[in-house]
Amino acid sequence: MRIEHLAIAVQDLDSALAFYCDALGLSVQRVEEVQREGVRVAFLPLGDAHIELVQPTCDATGIAKWMGKHGPGMHHVCIAVEDISAVLARLAERGVELINPQPMRREDGTAYAFIHPRSTFGVLIELYQRPERPAQ
Amino acid sequence: MRIEHLAIAVQDLDSALAFYCDALGLSVQRVEEVQREGVRVAFLPLGDAHIELVQPTCDATGIAKWMGKHGPGMHHVCIAVEDISAVLARLAERGVELINPQPMRREDGTAYAFIHPRSTFGVLIELYQRPERPAQ
Repeated sequence: MRIEHLAIAVQDLDSALAFYCDALGLSVQRVEEVQREGVRVAFLPLGDAHIELVQPTCDATGIAKWMGKHGPGMHHVCIAVEDISAVLARLAERGVELINPQPMRREDGTAYAFIHPRSTFGVLIELYQRPERPAQ
Repeated sequence: MRIEHLAIAVQDLDSALAFYCDALGLSVQRVEEVQREGVRVAFLPLGDAHIELVQPTCDATGIAKWMGKHGPGMHHVCIAVEDISAVLARLAERGVELINPQPMRREDGTAYAFIHPRSTFGVLIELYQRPERPAQ
């Protein structure tokens, strides 16, 4: 298991990049507009993990509503696991509240599931598993 | 640069360990009582980083007050850098608000400094540099 990424919600990606890249010294691997999720995301490698700066592009998304309540800040921590189904089964057995009791799939074949902050002591945790045969 | 640790503030370390270790599957490297800082801390390795579960043992500490306002959750992200003084100088030049404009030193010789969340889009960031000749 390892930290895969930290997702930070920001109102304005360009100002956030001015801090995280120009000032702090990280580099941008790529910036993606994900229309389906209503976000623009910058990927900043950091050791064997990365930071995702996430700017909502639509007020109706979960992250836009979250930011409306909390302001910008750490939205979630993503942890890479080897067998997401086994981890979810063990969590469910212990009564942990799962936002996604079954793994969801992204287009690139990665599986993910979120654990509710009520069970994690206030931290939204995403579990993540790479596809065995990468789609790309 | 890499993520060194994530610090999560919790009210009760034992309940937090029941989730992070028994349920999620992380292991505890050690638990430390740091009387000077008024905290009990559990260290949970995670890839080349670790999670620190921090339980205040005294109401007067910064982290106890923070938790009184925010509840349990992600308190700060620590990023390891090679030359903390150079990073702090660059941040100051760009007008970034530093809680510690000069590096602070821990007993083991590590240097650290915090960047104010007002400049980082809501995330309390600790910078950290190992001593060149470890004290231990």
